[in-house]
Amino acid sequence: MPVITKNFTIETQGHSQILDITKQVKSQILNISISSGIAVVFIPGSTAGITSIEYESGVMQDLAAAIERLAPKSIHYNHDARWGDGNGYAHVRAALIGASFTIPLQDKQLLLGTWQQIVLIDFDNRPRTRKVILQLIGE
Amino acid sequence: MPVITKNFTIETQGHSQILDITKQVKSQILNISISSGIAVVFIPGSTAGITSIEYESGVMQDLAAAIERLAPKSIHYNHDARWGDGNGYAHVRAALIGASFTIPLQDKQLLLGTWQQIVLIDFDNRPRTRKVILQLIGE
Amino acid sequence: MPVITKNFTIETQGHSQILDITKQVKSQILNISISSGIAVVFIPGSTAGITSIEYESGVMQDLAAAIERLAPKSIHYNHDARWGDGNGYAHVRAALIGASFTIPLQDKQLLLGTWQQIVLIDFDNRPRTRKVILQLIGE
Repeated sequence: MPVITKNFTIETQGHSQILDITKQVKSQILNISISSGIAVVFIPGSTAGITSIEYESGVMQDLAAAIERLAPKSIHYNHDARWGDGNGYAHVRAALIGASFTIPLQDKQLLLGTWQQIVLIDFDNRPRTRKVILQLIGE
Repeated sequence: MPVITKNFTIETQGHSQILDITKQVKSQILNISISSGIAVVFIPGSTAGITSIEYESGVMQDLAAAIERLAPKSIHYNHDARWGDGNGYAHVRAALIGASFTIPLQDKQLLLGTWQQIVLIDFDNRPRTRKVILQLIGE
Repeated sequence: MPVITKNFTIETQGHSQILDITKQVKSQILNISISSGIAVVFIPGSTAGITSIEYESGVMQDLAAAIERLAPKSIHYNHDARWGDGNGYAHVRAALIGASFTIPLQDKQLLLGTWQQIVLIDFDNRPRTRKVILQLIGE
């Protein structure tokens, strides 16, 4: 049973932009020797997260508003006081959402729901080029 | 090392009902050819989540209250304004909790704590029949 | 492809102490027969969680403050009313953060970002000796 490591890069605008990466993830599993197993979608770094959602503009605004309530930009962050990065809220948001998301794979298909997309949320306070890692294990 | 995909269905009441699915998950691993590895508990769909908790009625009420603070039902949701579903809060809650939960399996036992149960939280605004997927990889 | 189960114990102060366990996790994968695959970091129990963050004292304070907003210590918890444990908030926090974190492993290296550490957060209201499980699958 092989292990296959894939990755792709994606340009983000930061500022808690939510990007649908389902297509990119699916394109990585088209021509591999694993048909069933798991796909771990992982974002290296401490200012972005991975989850799933119905990727629809209304929900995106609603999720952004919830994240803003959870770790508002406008409050004091000790990280910023120490380092002057101005992205203390991004670190907190990323830790709460999580950097890893594991999806079952069966017969070359990710077992996502019909309205369930994989999203990368870039919480940083500037545009970034992000590398997303896809770890595939199976048979 | 095989990959085994199992699933079971469960009737929910929606409205952020928290269901203990530990027994159902355990029953799926009784007679399989994998004794050690991982079990990925995954909910397809965008209005439910999976996590673990001490399944006790006091804690259930406390978790429900925390989720209500996180994404209150009574505020405006753009999803509802666009689609009229009335379940905008469910999408936001599901994205924050996450659809996937991975548990180590050793000698046919899930390595959960004594007071740690696997729960499905159905955030949708109506009863649902949910299919839970269990992806098992190991030896 | 083998499955390897490791664990280590760590003394915590509880009270939402955030501990960097990256070194302990890395030390477990030094001399094993798996070089590529996944590492599942799992905390058995219902009052602690695992995630990743830039482990820097400012961010630690900021994350602690966000967790306090999410499930404040000072409000009423039904768990405490029923059981008198006084750690109702700990159960809620743990369920929201999650007990499991999966990291890709390639050529004996965890594919974490440069500033991304694995953390255990012990939400309980007293010092604990925690056992962290590391489930490794790969080749």
